[in-house]
Amino acid sequence: MPSTKTASNTTAPTQFLQVNGHSYAYRRFGNRSGLPLLCLQHFTGTLDNWDPAVSDPLASGREVILFDNAGIGRSSGVVPETVAEMAAHAMAFVDGLGLSKCDVLGFSLGGMIAQHIAQIRPSIIRRMILVGTAPRGGEDIMHLEKPSLAKHLQDPKNRGYAVLQKIFFAPTATSQAAGEAFIARLMQRTEDREPPSGPNVAAAQIAAFRDWERVGGDRFGDLKGISVPTLVVQGVRDEMIPVRNSYWLAENLPNAILLVYPDAGHGSLFQYPESFTRHVTAFLSGASDSAVF
Amino acid sequence: MPSTKTASNTTAPTQFLQVNGHSYAYRRFGNRSGLPLLCLQHFTGTLDNWDPAVSDPLASGREVILFDNAGIGRSSGVVPETVAEMAAHAMAFVDGLGLSKCDVLGFSLGGMIAQHIAQIRPSIIRRMILVGTAPRGGEDIMHLEKPSLAKHLQDPKNRGYAVLQKIFFAPTATSQAAGEAFIARLMQRTEDREPPSGPNVAAAQIAAFRDWERVGGDRFGDLKGISVPTLVVQGVRDEMIPVRNSYWLAENLPNAILLVYPDAGHGSLFQYPESFTRHVTAFLSGASDSAVF
Repeated sequence: MPSTKTASNTTAPTQFLQVNGHSYAYRRFGNRSGLPLLCLQHFTGTLDNWDPAVSDPLASGREVILFDNAGIGRSSGVVPETVAEMAAHAMAFVDGLGLSKCDVLGFSLGGMIAQHIAQIRPSIIRRMILVGTAPRGGEDIMHLEKPSLAKHLQDPKNRGYAVLQKIFFAPTATSQAAGEAFIARLMQRTEDREPPSGPNVAAAQIAAFRDWERVGGDRFGDLKGISVPTLVVQGVRDEMIPVRNSYWLAENLPNAILLVYPDAGHGSLFQYPESFTRHVTAFLSGASDSAVF
Repeated sequence: MPSTKTASNTTAPTQFLQVNGHSYAYRRFGNRSGLPLLCLQHFTGTLDNWDPAVSDPLASGREVILFDNAGIGRSSGVVPETVAEMAAHAMAFVDGLGLSKCDVLGFSLGGMIAQHIAQIRPSIIRRMILVGTAPRGGEDIMHLEKPSLAKHLQDPKNRGYAVLQKIFFAPTATSQAAGEAFIARLMQRTEDREPPSGPNVAAAQIAAFRDWERVGGDRFGDLKGISVPTLVVQGVRDEMIPVRNSYWLAENLPNAILLVYPDAGHGSLFQYPESFTRHVTAFLSGASDSAVF
């Protein structure tokens, strides 16, 4: 399928790819000159949760491909309960598009899927960006029952996107203002929207987080075999997946550079979209095998 | 004193400033258009330890001022045994130059001096870069008796700069090669060199590290009052001042962005001078009060 002419997630039409009996919803837009950037989404997020302030500047230098994993939005099937099965869907989708290689931006749950692909099939990833995520065997991953998160999730005033402002951004005036602007940007898309994720999606993805948290024999040892150049990004005040998980990524991935944003929570990329897209653009422009940019 | 025409630490002449009965050795060079960047040096380092691959690109956009604190190189006096006293000398020097404000690059010990100035006299610092350093109350700061460091420091083969390759760089082929190139760059300056620091310098600075390591009542609490926009940089494999010290800086300074380099030790800025100077240039170009660039 060709890239659409509208290089914005506010207006790009949703497309569907049939692979192995599955139908995957996706959007693909941007400048076709570079290697495409596959974007893997966060817990319960759909195509509509990609902030145009992030996707659109990135699309000016390459094609951006937003992807709904199985059972999300209008993709068929059920949501798997392991990261490995989600990664299998993502790889089937990439193969179905006929891409032999791409760059990957994985946010939160999407970053776990990206790590898994980088481990079992590194040939299809040139460079990856891991934002607000954790290594297998990480800690305190998406424990929504924690008081600091539960108070927002259980507050009936926080309907729809409003809760994202609370749980993706730090409890400061500056971060909350950035969160409000982020929500407004998500609302700019008015047609061809995805159905929001329901409790079944959340339950399956939470099961995947609990599985991902399990510590194996050689904790973080699997990261040492991943040579894909990696940019790790995290907000220093992330309550959903604390920043120490990104420290472990940077300390154990042999080829990862770490950037930590101040005054930011889980949604650091959406709080500082200009900075984030500038750094990602420079990182993706790297011609060597080193993550350093 | 005017800036010299030669914008390189390989050739810029050493100058001397007389303040309050002290004579401070320094070099000042570069483009006079921006705010000057004051560079505060590491343990036992002199003016000659500033890598021209770092100082010279930075000097293309601003004046770079390299400074020998009291008792170092050809600066008069004795080396103080506290960071606070070293900071007093640095402030006297800045005042003596007639600068009301500057940017500051503090490496290792120099980063501690920068933090102290930012705390007690923030008005003279616009933006600061803290590389390979630690907060007051940090851990494992310059314990040269550790086997991982002592084996290099006590090896008679490691004379002069050769030991820097071992203790500033990670024990990998790539990092050691970068260390070798660094040493070669330091040797490019052939005239008007500083006398190397002797054991008395080292002993006094080690005393300052031991004092800096002491944990007060509210550990890292003093950082919360520093609003100077700060870029924190560290090598993930730093043996001299481990990276967790930079994590604490980023977690407690309210306005600090953190960059951690892979496959790098204490001298990460000298291992990746192109990347480092590009990021620093972008950071120093920030027009807002935010550290985010």
